[in-house]
Amino acid sequence: MTTDLQQARLEPRAHTRASVEELARRYSTWGRWGADDELGAANHVTQETVRHAAGLVRRGAVFPLALPLEGDGPQLGAGGRVNPQHVMLRTPAEEMFDDGGLVRFSDDAVYMALQCSTQWDALCHIFYDGQAYNGRDFSSVGAVTGARHNSITNLTDRAAGRGVLLDVGRFVGRELEPGESIQREHLEACAQAQGVQVGTGDFVLVRTGQMTQRRGAWGDFSGGPAPGLGVSTADFLCPRDVVAVATDTWGIEALPYEAPDVVAPLHVILLAYAGIYIGEMWDLDALAADCAADGVYEFFLTAPPLTITGSVGSPITPLAIK
Amino acid sequence: MTTDLQQARLEPRAHTRASVEELARRYSTWGRWGADDELGAANHVTQETVRHAAGLVRRGAVFPLALPLEGDGPQLGAGGRVNPQHVMLRTPAEEMFDDGGLVRFSDDAVYMALQCSTQWDALCHIFYDGQAYNGRDFSSVGAVTGARHNSITNLTDRAAGRGVLLDVGRFVGRELEPGESIQREHLEACAQAQGVQVGTGDFVLVRTGQMTQRRGAWGDFSGGPAPGLGVSTADFLCPRDVVAVATDTWGIEALPYEAPDVVAPLHVILLAYAGIYIGEMWDLDALAADCAADGVYEFFLTAPPLTITGSVGSPITPLAIK
Amino acid sequence: MTTDLQQARLEPRAHTRASVEELARRYSTWGRWGADDELGAANHVTQETVRHAAGLVRRGAVFPLALPLEGDGPQLGAGGRVNPQHVMLRTPAEEMFDDGGLVRFSDDAVYMALQCSTQWDALCHIFYDGQAYNGRDFSSVGAVTGARHNSITNLTDRAAGRGVLLDVGRFVGRELEPGESIQREHLEACAQAQGVQVGTGDFVLVRTGQMTQRRGAWGDFSGGPAPGLGVSTADFLCPRDVVAVATDTWGIEALPYEAPDVVAPLHVILLAYAGIYIGEMWDLDALAADCAADGVYEFFLTAPPLTITGSVGSPITPLAIK
Amino acid sequence: MTTDLQQARLEPRAHTRASVEELARRYSTWGRWGADDELGAANHVTQETVRHAAGLVRRGAVFPLALPLEGDGPQLGAGGRVNPQHVMLRTPAEEMFDDGGLVRFSDDAVYMALQCSTQWDALCHIFYDGQAYNGRDFSSVGAVTGARHNSITNLTDRAAGRGVLLDVGRFVGRELEPGESIQREHLEACAQAQGVQVGTGDFVLVRTGQMTQRRGAWGDFSGGPAPGLGVSTADFLCPRDVVAVATDTWGIEALPYEAPDVVAPLHVILLAYAGIYIGEMWDLDALAADCAADGVYEFFLTAPPLTITGSVGSPITPLAIK
Repeated sequence: MTTDLQQARLEPRAHTRASVEELARRYSTWGRWGADDELGAANHVTQETVRHAAGLVRRGAVFPLALPLEGDGPQLGAGGRVNPQHVMLRTPAEEMFDDGGLVRFSDDAVYMALQCSTQWDALCHIFYDGQAYNGRDFSSVGAVTGARHNSITNLTDRAAGRGVLLDVGRFVGRELEPGESIQREHLEACAQAQGVQVGTGDFVLVRTGQMTQRRGAWGDFSGGPAPGLGVSTADFLCPRDVVAVATDTWGIEALPYEAPDVVAPLHVILLAYAGIYIGEMWDLDALAADCAADGVYEFFLTAPPLTITGSVGSPITPLAIK
Repeated sequence: MTTDLQQARLEPRAHTRASVEELARRYSTWGRWGADDELGAANHVTQETVRHAAGLVRRGAVFPLALPLEGDGPQLGAGGRVNPQHVMLRTPAEEMFDDGGLVRFSDDAVYMALQCSTQWDALCHIFYDGQAYNGRDFSSVGAVTGARHNSITNLTDRAAGRGVLLDVGRFVGRELEPGESIQREHLEACAQAQGVQVGTGDFVLVRTGQMTQRRGAWGDFSGGPAPGLGVSTADFLCPRDVVAVATDTWGIEALPYEAPDVVAPLHVILLAYAGIYIGEMWDLDALAADCAADGVYEFFLTAPPLTITGSVGSPITPLAIK
Repeated sequence: MTTDLQQARLEPRAHTRASVEELARRYSTWGRWGADDELGAANHVTQETVRHAAGLVRRGAVFPLALPLEGDGPQLGAGGRVNPQHVMLRTPAEEMFDDGGLVRFSDDAVYMALQCSTQWDALCHIFYDGQAYNGRDFSSVGAVTGARHNSITNLTDRAAGRGVLLDVGRFVGRELEPGESIQREHLEACAQAQGVQVGTGDFVLVRTGQMTQRRGAWGDFSGGPAPGLGVSTADFLCPRDVVAVATDTWGIEALPYEAPDVVAPLHVILLAYAGIYIGEMWDLDALAADCAADGVYEFFLTAPPLTITGSVGSPITPLAIK
Repeated sequence: MTTDLQQARLEPRAHTRASVEELARRYSTWGRWGADDELGAANHVTQETVRHAAGLVRRGAVFPLALPLEGDGPQLGAGGRVNPQHVMLRTPAEEMFDDGGLVRFSDDAVYMALQCSTQWDALCHIFYDGQAYNGRDFSSVGAVTGARHNSITNLTDRAAGRGVLLDVGRFVGRELEPGESIQREHLEACAQAQGVQVGTGDFVLVRTGQMTQRRGAWGDFSGGPAPGLGVSTADFLCPRDVVAVATDTWGIEALPYEAPDVVAPLHVILLAYAGIYIGEMWDLDALAADCAADGVYEFFLTAPPLTITGSVGSPITPLAIK
């Protein structure tokens, strides 16, 4: 059965500062886990959710969901977001010890923007009207210390659980085009079509297909017009108490944004108010092909951040294990 | 029952270039998986080993095994190995958009040596007599490209499986001292005492207790005298077809090295010949305390590297899940 | 004639917030060159001062005044100030073109704190009570843009003129000890003994001898107790309309600071109020030996910063030419 | 008088490996200053040349010749050559001391390719047939140490002298186009037209006008087709015993190169054989306008490198002082 949702272009909906703030208030979890909480939706990760999720491993198939970190990546350099600069500190061409060159080592280093590729946004990544998640003010992120609160390192021991792929691109039968905006209904219909439900403690991965198109010829993939989640998807994600949502696009949201007077409105609602983590530039294609083949869209997911003290985001190598 | 192995100081054994090369030949896997193989012992990771390992998750308890990545870390700077330099590219103190400062972001970057903290050594990390794993010569690692072969990125989709902790420190009832050298017999006796067996596809984590002593007051932790694995542990690890071995020390091996004329002899045998991955500076204390409490020393482990193209090592955030 | 000034330990004098602020007010040049001025004392550099200074080149002897920029430098890493990390992007060991390896290049890169070694402080390096030179507030230096005002790049075309060495170490016949504090009288007596006068548009270099002692065994050279300029030297420098003052110490001032309730009081007076540039960790030994030999303590000096947009300091290679 | 040289397109000339090698042999200075020499043509810098050059300062006008070092610079990222990444380590937005925020500092750092903008190539920047200047082999530049020989730091105390501008762009009355190749005759005619002579110890700056066209809209300025020096200019530069030659282009040479089978043939002759230093991406426009106005094309020049131990190139802020 092909539904109307699958045939039409996914149109953005008009939002305003007022409508965005209404959703932010509705789904705010500030104070829900205490005034000092920095975990946000990661509070939904429990031994039960992890144990149950591990039980989803039926074949032992491992799908890494990270792009290569390399100089030819999607970054354009704006705001200091360059692609990773990998440098060798030592190559085996040189003798190292006084042993006639018998034993030699290679060593390396990297300069990288932490948001340059497949990554997590921390809850302190975005501030709205002076505040980040749970009311933290600007002083919570400084140039010297980085994040004093709401760092992505908070997620470290909670970055495991049930992953659910919602392959919206496959659901509508094509790779979404820049500007197309996935709405709550699309997520609901896609989940239903896939025979999967989203619930408490889940990590939701939404595939638009944009990375499928742009891989290796990135152009304006970073920051340009993009398909993505519309503001209404907050109505899908927040009530289900998910931990995180990730997409195969630069910034999860449909671009241009649906609210002309609020930049990144869904980031505001999810990160700053609901405390839901955001994953960007996840490479979902191999996983999606496998899910399409076996009809199983749920799996065990691990995606711990690097433990960089004070970091406001992190490159990651998520593993989906079926 | 307290055995002699637990009472005495763990003495290093005398090795020579000849004895090291004999072990290297004995345990070499060059050609075992084809002339072009770059996976080495990661070939032992199969859907079966992963599926079985996931079944070890009984409680859903997650133990991250990474040190904090920060300026106060264990590095001393030799050879360019500085501690991570985390820098902010953007803080919320500044307005970003033409929106009266309503929405603001924070962004960050890092300069880091890839071997600076909890990490994997790639199979190309060490060369012996001109060759790395499977006979790759110096041209396999260049300054521009990094590793053309044997990069740690090869491990990405194999970095999951059964982890086994051998808590030698607890077994002998104390934190090992610099220079103490764990031998094959200690690993066997420790495994037996813990009631655990090591087998094909396992990731073996050996705790000496040195990190317990040095945490936060690192001194010469990096490169100085250290407790660690003796050369004879190759006789334990290699026949069991393990994927990797990791310790809570700077460089897994007892320092000073047991062979006066071969630097890092166990690295030579394991990395360059057996193709067994080496993990260093893993923080095993919390996991070890839990294992001591419940008597269960096996668990599901994920430890994928960053996907830096050409990297010869990687910082990681291993997760042990029980 | 040996004076009392030369025999006694150079004692620090007691200052307070009030006395520091009194000097700051007295020597403030805010508004002197207009409300938008960012040059400060570099306004004293004119074609006349440059032309006259060039006329001081009598022999053609060139003295570079920069320390080596290397991993073994004086930095300890606090606040992200690591020693320079020089990395090779390309070595000739690798073929580059499809020419049988005939032509090969080497290339390199560096990660470095801009204040890590011989350097200039920009006028925006220090803020007192919310303001930097000429009343600029905190918004004048942001994490994304760096310095929007008072960047060290302002000095670029003014970084030439007459240099005068005041070799206080040699004047008192020894290398000064940590805590010794050079006062106005010492500078006056030293200049008189050397037969040199300091005037408008000059770059004043003061040698304590600390670098002579510490070179290569830096210890707490960066930030630890140090000989240096006392607050009263403002009475010497400011009325003479000098452009800049530089020393062979980490931070020009005697440490501990003379004012218990104002950090870096001389920085406050000179940088933030008088607009006088501060040079730190200049290597004056070879120049000083030459000046002692020929009795000529004036010379042509060039010391342009790197032109890093928004930089608040810069590594430099000053040249003194006699 | 307008000559033919000024009217026609500056055509490249056909060279071959044989003709390039013939010039390399002819102008080689290997051994001229001893088997261990690393200075090359910097040996021509003497106290006499410096003293004479300082005498060229008649007005005291200072012309910095450096581009801004910033993220929007000319680099495209190939081979790790990214534009400078300037990052703040500290901004005044944060309190630093326990003083109620009274005194605050700003600090910064940079990650930069050393050849990213206005720069010097070291004599070890290029190897031909296995050797760099004075016969140094590949082992002279390693990944760990950088340059063990022929580092740009050798130039530090010789980076001063007489600068001569040859404004070829103005001489032919237009900005040269990509592919146009300046020949020996053009330099001779331009010098004659300008009434200036080039001699021993000079630093020769050649303006093509390409930077005038491309400034701020760099496109393929780095590495793309470019006007520049033809191979025959070696016949102008080498016999005159110049120290260095610099242009306002990415790589001094006309691109495409004149020799199809030798990459960068003029680099080979000048850097590897004659030991003449090469300056690239020098911003000559303001200086050139001044020279055109007063008819004086000679000046005092200082252009010391950063003192990064082992560096094979360096960003610089050259000062031309008239």
